[in-house]
Amino acid sequence: LADGAGEPQKIKTTDERSRFLEVYSQLKSELLADSKIFQFTPESRVWTEKMLDYTVPGGKLNRGISVVDSLRLLLERELTEEEYFLSSSLGWCIEWLQGYFLVEDDIMDASVTRRGQSCWYRLPKVGMIAINDGILLRNHIGQILKRHFKTKPYYTELLDLFNEVEYQTSLGQMLDLITTPEGEVDLSKYIMPTYLKIVQYKTAYYSFYLPVSCALLIFGEKDEAKFEAAEKILVQMGTYFQVQDDFLDCYGDPAFIGKIGTDIEDTKCSWLVVQALQRASEEQKNTIKENYGKKDPANVAVIKKIYKDLNLEKVFEDYEQDSYVSLIAAIEAVDSSPLQAVFKAFLKKIYKRQK
Amino acid sequence: LADGAGEPQKIKTTDERSRFLEVYSQLKSELLADSKIFQFTPESRVWTEKMLDYTVPGGKLNRGISVVDSLRLLLERELTEEEYFLSSSLGWCIEWLQGYFLVEDDIMDASVTRRGQSCWYRLPKVGMIAINDGILLRNHIGQILKRHFKTKPYYTELLDLFNEVEYQTSLGQMLDLITTPEGEVDLSKYIMPTYLKIVQYKTAYYSFYLPVSCALLIFGEKDEAKFEAAEKILVQMGTYFQVQDDFLDCYGDPAFIGKIGTDIEDTKCSWLVVQALQRASEEQKNTIKENYGKKDPANVAVIKKIYKDLNLEKVFEDYEQDSYVSLIAAIEAVDSSPLQAVFKAFLKKIYKRQK
Ligand SMILES: [Mg+2]
Ligand SMILES: [Mg+2]
Ligand SMILES: [Mg+2]
Ligand SMILES: [Mg+2]
Ligand SMILES: [Mg+2]
Ligand SMILES: [Mg+2]
Repeated sequence: LADGAGEPQKIKTTDERSRFLEVYSQLKSELLADSKIFQFTPESRVWTEKMLDYTVPGGKLNRGISVVDSLRLLLERELTEEEYFLSSSLGWCIEWLQGYFLVEDDIMDASVTRRGQSCWYRLPKVGMIAINDGILLRNHIGQILKRHFKTKPYYTELLDLFNEVEYQTSLGQMLDLITTPEGEVDLSKYIMPTYLKIVQYKTAYYSFYLPVSCALLIFGEKDEAKFEAAEKILVQMGTYFQVQDDFLDCYGDPAFIGKIGTDIEDTKCSWLVVQALQRASEEQKNTIKENYGKKDPANVAVIKKIYKDLNLEKVFEDYEQDSYVSLIAAIEAVDSSPLQAVFKAFLKKIYKRQK
Repeated sequence: LADGAGEPQKIKTTDERSRFLEVYSQLKSELLADSKIFQFTPESRVWTEKMLDYTVPGGKLNRGISVVDSLRLLLERELTEEEYFLSSSLGWCIEWLQGYFLVEDDIMDASVTRRGQSCWYRLPKVGMIAINDGILLRNHIGQILKRHFKTKPYYTELLDLFNEVEYQTSLGQMLDLITTPEGEVDLSKYIMPTYLKIVQYKTAYYSFYLPVSCALLIFGEKDEAKFEAAEKILVQMGTYFQVQDDFLDCYGDPAFIGKIGTDIEDTKCSWLVVQALQRASEEQKNTIKENYGKKDPANVAVIKKIYKDLNLEKVFEDYEQDSYVSLIAAIEAVDSSPLQAVFKAFLKKIYKRQK
């Protein structure tokens, strides 16, 4: 699962961020005050607090804050204190969900670093306990929802929504894991329909569809068609977003992105290699097979040369333009101008992004 | 997490088991027919089916079937087709939940076998993908509930119940994992209050409280006091059950239990060692420290000798008798004779069990 480098970008004021982080502190305190087990064993309280601080608030927080922004656009006015609290709490539930996915994903991918620090499971005292820590993060969401949303008319829809999105994400993870198993490279599986399914399921649902659906529920939206439009448009937007992520991994400016891409070295089923395999001659295909997934910079250079020969920069440019046109058309067909504004705000944040 | 060796025991007719297993087949087929991802990639369908058959139905099924039995006792009559289907579906949700816990627990404990076969994560093609497979199992429960219970008046309570019980279980796992971390032995942590908390949280809620609560929800029980009584009594019963499990690990007949106990070798925070440490002289304590958690049969024999010297068989006998008396008293104070019958049926299955 991708995180930081490529989330919807936006310059956030320190105020906005720190107000959002205050809600994190409150939700965390409530969780730690709640279970009898923490009162009984202070050790478990200390562990949980450290784990939360390490795994939940350290990302860019774009997914979480976008719930607040979306609700503001839907209401077409500033939020009340309560609306702010509710929308940022759901925003934090999404950040908690992401923390959970990333903790488990890093173990499965044997990753080393995450968000500029060691992966949680790599800390000496943690190890495989991280599996259960991730599960705890998922369970905290149920606790937060029960505490703050139990009396809302949309409580059941909220539980269903988080369940549904978690299921889609874990299906995407499964497809990713069995398509590109570690140590084994079978490039015949790196085809566009599989690529698109993986991306839609493992990224687009929770990163794009979930924040807007949360905002729609608080807003009180009852029309199922609105949620369906959101799903269709935002899954498409999430796909476009991941394609950008894959493109920037190779063509982006590391100083700007904040990390050096290693998708080629890591044998990733990236949009670029899928496009390259579609367009390559038999000879080029063999060259890709021989060089993809190797750590040596010489092998990486061979792959990048093929990308260049196949003019993938132009292929991406066309894809980006087509995506934009098609998204705008889909957005303008939506029968609600505040909802259109929500979609456009998302699109504006990512269109032609450089990081 | 314990499984098989010590679940509530009962001789089940082949008919009862095979009727219950038919519901598994239906629920599985529905899941596999449902997601678009399975239609799209047959590989992922094959993987999921294999994973389900390997991890879900292979236990003794006592937890699952006890939902059906409990509903029958609450209604004081035979079940209709629909009641049978609903109660066994929730029974299967508990088996799915257990499958999920066991898949993750075996990875964290680096276990080798489970239910007489290799642990799922130990299969060559599986490995760490098992983490996500366990997560999928948890997510299947949400799918089953949505499909078959969405229109029921108790749908939200059902979602809350499964969330709550999963949270309790993962808190118990956390406490277990940080109290008895692998490779490190600190017997000063093996004290009765900690032992009781671990057992209550990681076993009693999902094994005893959950099946009865599921039956109460289908029955239409609205009185919160009934659920509270169930929690109090069944958590106590689940604790007694786990103490028996620990006792039988050392004193049970392997031919009868179906496995050879290794709690001493595995440095388990077992009721026996906790009792021994409470009663041991300084000299005996040192002997325990030197010999506990070693694979050599000579070390194990030293521990067993101390258990014998401390007369732990008698300590257990007294504990068993006290538990029985206290449970019967608590049960008879419950203001509902069908609910009393449910509790008594559970107690009857486990009192003085030999396996
Ligand atoms: Mg990863
Ligand atoms: Mg991954
Ligand atoms: Mg990337
Ligand atoms: Mg275990
Ligand atoms: Mg364990
Ligand atoms: Mg045992």
